[in-house]
Amino acid sequence: MNAMSAVRSSDSSSLPECQSVAAEMSALMAELYPICRSITGDGLRQSLRILQRVVPMELHEVASGTQVFDWIVPDEWNVRDAYVKNAGGEKVIDFQASNLHLLNYSVPIHQTMSLAQLVPHLYSLSAQPDWIPYRTSYYNRDWGFCVSHRTLQSLPDSEYEVYIDSSLEPGYMTYGEYCLSGETRDEVLISCHCCHPSLANDNLSGMVVAAMLAQQLSQRPRRLTYRFLFIPGTIGSITWLALNEPQITNIKHGLVVTCVGDPGKFTYKKSRSGNAEIDRAVKLILAHLGQEYEIVDFSPYGYDERQYCSLGFNLPVGSLTRTPNGRYPEYHTSADNLDLVQPDSLEQSLRTYLAVLDVLENNKTYTNTNPKCEPQLGRRGLYTAIGGGSDAPTRQMALLWVLNMSDGQHSLVDIAERSGLAFGHIAEAASALLGADLLREQMDGSVAEQPR
Amino acid sequence: MNAMSAVRSSDSSSLPECQSVAAEMSALMAELYPICRSITGDGLRQSLRILQRVVPMELHEVASGTQVFDWIVPDEWNVRDAYVKNAGGEKVIDFQASNLHLLNYSVPIHQTMSLAQLVPHLYSLSAQPDWIPYRTSYYNRDWGFCVSHRTLQSLPDSEYEVYIDSSLEPGYMTYGEYCLSGETRDEVLISCHCCHPSLANDNLSGMVVAAMLAQQLSQRPRRLTYRFLFIPGTIGSITWLALNEPQITNIKHGLVVTCVGDPGKFTYKKSRSGNAEIDRAVKLILAHLGQEYEIVDFSPYGYDERQYCSLGFNLPVGSLTRTPNGRYPEYHTSADNLDLVQPDSLEQSLRTYLAVLDVLENNKTYTNTNPKCEPQLGRRGLYTAIGGGSDAPTRQMALLWVLNMSDGQHSLVDIAERSGLAFGHIAEAASALLGADLLREQMDGSVAEQPR
Amino acid sequence: MNAMSAVRSSDSSSLPECQSVAAEMSALMAELYPICRSITGDGLRQSLRILQRVVPMELHEVASGTQVFDWIVPDEWNVRDAYVKNAGGEKVIDFQASNLHLLNYSVPIHQTMSLAQLVPHLYSLSAQPDWIPYRTSYYNRDWGFCVSHRTLQSLPDSEYEVYIDSSLEPGYMTYGEYCLSGETRDEVLISCHCCHPSLANDNLSGMVVAAMLAQQLSQRPRRLTYRFLFIPGTIGSITWLALNEPQITNIKHGLVVTCVGDPGKFTYKKSRSGNAEIDRAVKLILAHLGQEYEIVDFSPYGYDERQYCSLGFNLPVGSLTRTPNGRYPEYHTSADNLDLVQPDSLEQSLRTYLAVLDVLENNKTYTNTNPKCEPQLGRRGLYTAIGGGSDAPTRQMALLWVLNMSDGQHSLVDIAERSGLAFGHIAEAASALLGADLLREQMDGSVAEQPR
Repeated sequence: MNAMSAVRSSDSSSLPECQSVAAEMSALMAELYPICRSITGDGLRQSLRILQRVVPMELHEVASGTQVFDWIVPDEWNVRDAYVKNAGGEKVIDFQASNLHLLNYSVPIHQTMSLAQLVPHLYSLSAQPDWIPYRTSYYNRDWGFCVSHRTLQSLPDSEYEVYIDSSLEPGYMTYGEYCLSGETRDEVLISCHCCHPSLANDNLSGMVVAAMLAQQLSQRPRRLTYRFLFIPGTIGSITWLALNEPQITNIKHGLVVTCVGDPGKFTYKKSRSGNAEIDRAVKLILAHLGQEYEIVDFSPYGYDERQYCSLGFNLPVGSLTRTPNGRYPEYHTSADNLDLVQPDSLEQSLRTYLAVLDVLENNKTYTNTNPKCEPQLGRRGLYTAIGGGSDAPTRQMALLWVLNMSDGQHSLVDIAERSGLAFGHIAEAASALLGADLLREQMDGSVAEQPR
Repeated sequence: MNAMSAVRSSDSSSLPECQSVAAEMSALMAELYPICRSITGDGLRQSLRILQRVVPMELHEVASGTQVFDWIVPDEWNVRDAYVKNAGGEKVIDFQASNLHLLNYSVPIHQTMSLAQLVPHLYSLSAQPDWIPYRTSYYNRDWGFCVSHRTLQSLPDSEYEVYIDSSLEPGYMTYGEYCLSGETRDEVLISCHCCHPSLANDNLSGMVVAAMLAQQLSQRPRRLTYRFLFIPGTIGSITWLALNEPQITNIKHGLVVTCVGDPGKFTYKKSRSGNAEIDRAVKLILAHLGQEYEIVDFSPYGYDERQYCSLGFNLPVGSLTRTPNGRYPEYHTSADNLDLVQPDSLEQSLRTYLAVLDVLENNKTYTNTNPKCEPQLGRRGLYTAIGGGSDAPTRQMALLWVLNMSDGQHSLVDIAERSGLAFGHIAEAASALLGADLLREQMDGSVAEQPR
Repeated sequence: MNAMSAVRSSDSSSLPECQSVAAEMSALMAELYPICRSITGDGLRQSLRILQRVVPMELHEVASGTQVFDWIVPDEWNVRDAYVKNAGGEKVIDFQASNLHLLNYSVPIHQTMSLAQLVPHLYSLSAQPDWIPYRTSYYNRDWGFCVSHRTLQSLPDSEYEVYIDSSLEPGYMTYGEYCLSGETRDEVLISCHCCHPSLANDNLSGMVVAAMLAQQLSQRPRRLTYRFLFIPGTIGSITWLALNEPQITNIKHGLVVTCVGDPGKFTYKKSRSGNAEIDRAVKLILAHLGQEYEIVDFSPYGYDERQYCSLGFNLPVGSLTRTPNGRYPEYHTSADNLDLVQPDSLEQSLRTYLAVLDVLENNKTYTNTNPKCEPQLGRRGLYTAIGGGSDAPTRQMALLWVLNMSDGQHSLVDIAERSGLAFGHIAEAASALLGADLLREQMDGSVAEQPR
């Protein structure tokens, strides 16, 4: 690392054309929103192809029936149309109006039945009577419709024509993968799930921010290698882990990207270990954002961190969201729509992800070449000439902290944590001291052993 | 352990006939209350014989003069009568009215004396002028009377006849011991002191709850062995430790039972190590009681935990009480009477002790047989069929936590602590997973080496 | 250690004639205040000679140009007079009125100039318009004057005669050193900076308290050796460390003494390690003072702890102050004068330093000779004869804690920390138990290897 690359850290979160980036993300959201995605099928495939315009990911197709650890890749599901008509032939529930109306993975049916026969197949939310819930039945062959509670209550006791023109048969599960190689083989895993139909925050926002993150990183020098996964939830991460087991040890850090478009505060869910470098990097960035934020402990529920952090892998993967799953009222309902997602939120999420990755890129360990007493910084133009003021400026404090702690054992993240200063200031100070030959970079064994 | 034994944990604190258990404890309290107990003598002996009706303990008699570590078993004390008569021949202090009136271990005396000579031998509480204090002089031959402050102040300056018909001479110190063997030699020590005269909460309540606990445990399958000690305070535990030193290493957990009948909140005083399995088990149970409680650090003052936790033994023994010694105004006074003790409190204390012991019984360590990613729980009927809800039910969370942490190193107590879920839910989940062959029990070396 | 030396700890902070000690410190302050000190020169030399009346320190003279690690001892600075006269020949700034008026280390000048030429050389505080700031330019040859903001604003646009009769040329840097040997070579370093001109709290108060501390300690038995340094800030400690590197490993504890005369609460800045014995000793004393206090973490800014705690030395040196540098408004201004410093504060600071050093002197480690159960303290007159009271007196609790924790591994500081009792009570208890042969002193390897 040279002085310039450390300096870069201070403004790493800047985006060249912020306005256009936010606008590009919003446009992508709008284009992807109407598509009926699932864990397999053409909606998922089409969505990934749209994202290929931003990130040149490779699409993988895994055949139904493939054994992946304890699971089997399911049959492929596609749907053309679905509705419920009342006795008058009027569509009272219509998949064309919202793909959420259909229980995801519903098997085909065409049958006339009484209300009493229909009702066990209807899902609604009495607490939110105008919203359509999102429900799935991936591994239990079933059919059903999701409706607003008001619709449910308005259905007269009569005969209904139930029609689902879907197919659930052997095919493929699709996922996207994109690898941006860096100076070393040490990898950062960025994973997002792409299986939700018309839901905007969960997880169109994650798909779009992950894609834009890949685009931004592709234009920067990289010490680390970045692997982006655009996968269906649960079965996608299980499949990827099963098919890529030998190379998983390269993963040194990871983030699951989801729910990054709502206006809520940032929430970081720690990795299973709780004190991995990624956990510490995110905490440092959030602590200096100047906004409220929340750090929550790992739990084996949520998104694909469940699989990455399962006992047998225990990868250092956390999840940086805004309001997390299940904690906003619109979650998994038709109200998680484009109105919930703000361009500003998307753009700040992207910026925050970039800042976190910048910590990982620049978290070097140095050795103070002049460890006995302070070096005379003033002689080198690094210290104020006139003494006697009450406080040292932040820049000077950063220099003193880096000198005081650079024993070849403590990284810049360690120093930022102990000093309470922003990582950017610490990295700048390290750069200045390196330029003055007051620091020597400590070569990291694992990096040396894995040059690319 | 099979699935059923883990399931048992969830309802382990249930008592078959709660009403009758509480009533039986209250009846025992009432029968034992009037007896004049001390650290030796017939009152202690008679009390233990009454408890033998509930728990078939063995009574041990240790001769006066026996050396036990730094101490010597004292002479045996018995008292037939004691009073102070005024000049008119009227009993102004009468042992028959309350055995607290006599300084415990008073030597015999029969003498007429002035008020000035008498007063240095009288003990009262000016802050509680109607209550008789409880005072002892075990190791300093002395005599005295404890009186209400009002009585003290009412005594005219006159002559008094002082009469104590007691004996303090070589005899025996009595204690009760009851061992309930289990599958392993690993022992749980349950110790209560039985040396206090007419005091109800301290410690008749402890004697009665300990006895009933023994009765309840005798009717259950037991992995662990339980040793109950009904002993005089301090000298009793020192004597037992001195006489049983070789087998003390069997003790893996212990609780000192006292002050368990008042209506106050539970207070747990940790063992000397502070993080023993017993400490963690009690904390887990109290945290899920849905009531206020308090955990206090070990200090070398209190009851027999002082001896069990002395430097040379350092046993993992805590003390689970309601309001602890010295923290309720009635402590060591005539107001610590049967009115202070509530049947409900006794019964809930017994239930809580049973729940704690159930944690110890079921705190196994497992290995997840399918550690890479989650196993497909739905296929095994362990997961909801319809996906998309906001929160996983507690039962599902418990399954996920047990899978995520069962690495053969973390026990169910570890998992309950980290997950924040009740031990009962964790144990039930382990049982279900074991039944589905998703867990394998980790054999504990120390158990394997000590089969019974 | 015998019993008496431990007992001494309880009243160690007493001063034989408190009134006269406070008065002596105030008189020294008044005598030293007007002298124009700097990091070199006659003002520093004269000040140390005055302190020699109290503490027979040795003065060292280090030649300008001496290389000390990354630094070079600067030229010696002396000043005879300095002023600025207005066009009318009136002195508008006069060094004789306050030595703070002169930028410390100003080079000589005698020149007439316009206000515009003068102003860049003037320093003032707009927020405190009546106070003169204190400013220095040790390593950048410059000249300047410090003035009240009101004076600055009153200067008309006219011609000024600027006169500084100073010399800055090869000479010597002076510092004082005093070593009080004890039974062992283990050293306590007491360091104060003596380079500030007319500033009272920072750091005349430190110089005077350090001198009086040396005087008091010289009259007491000492297990430890004490080294007092009276040095110019930064360059003084760097020089001393450079010249004394081989013997630095003797330093086991240290305190930087400064800002000990204001009426503010005590503030302790921890050593770099944060948990050194000195850190724990200070915390124990402050926690039992019965006053508000503050403990702050180490940071590599402040006084000479910056050098002692630099990476290459990492000495266990903290700083015990009242209001620390930069945290009181008068800091580094003419308002840090004799009015700010209270005799009571000086005297309490001295007493607190003595109490801390007493912890270090008496922090022995013992082994309980009777570790199995409690010994019978009553038989030895160490326990109350009449039992049954609610609480044990502090003296008894201290005995029980020392017995319970004296395993040859835990020091009296460990015991005081865990028990929450004052160190004095713990040390008294240890003394009593040692007298009763219930403790045996644990010989400390490092002490045994370094007898004097």
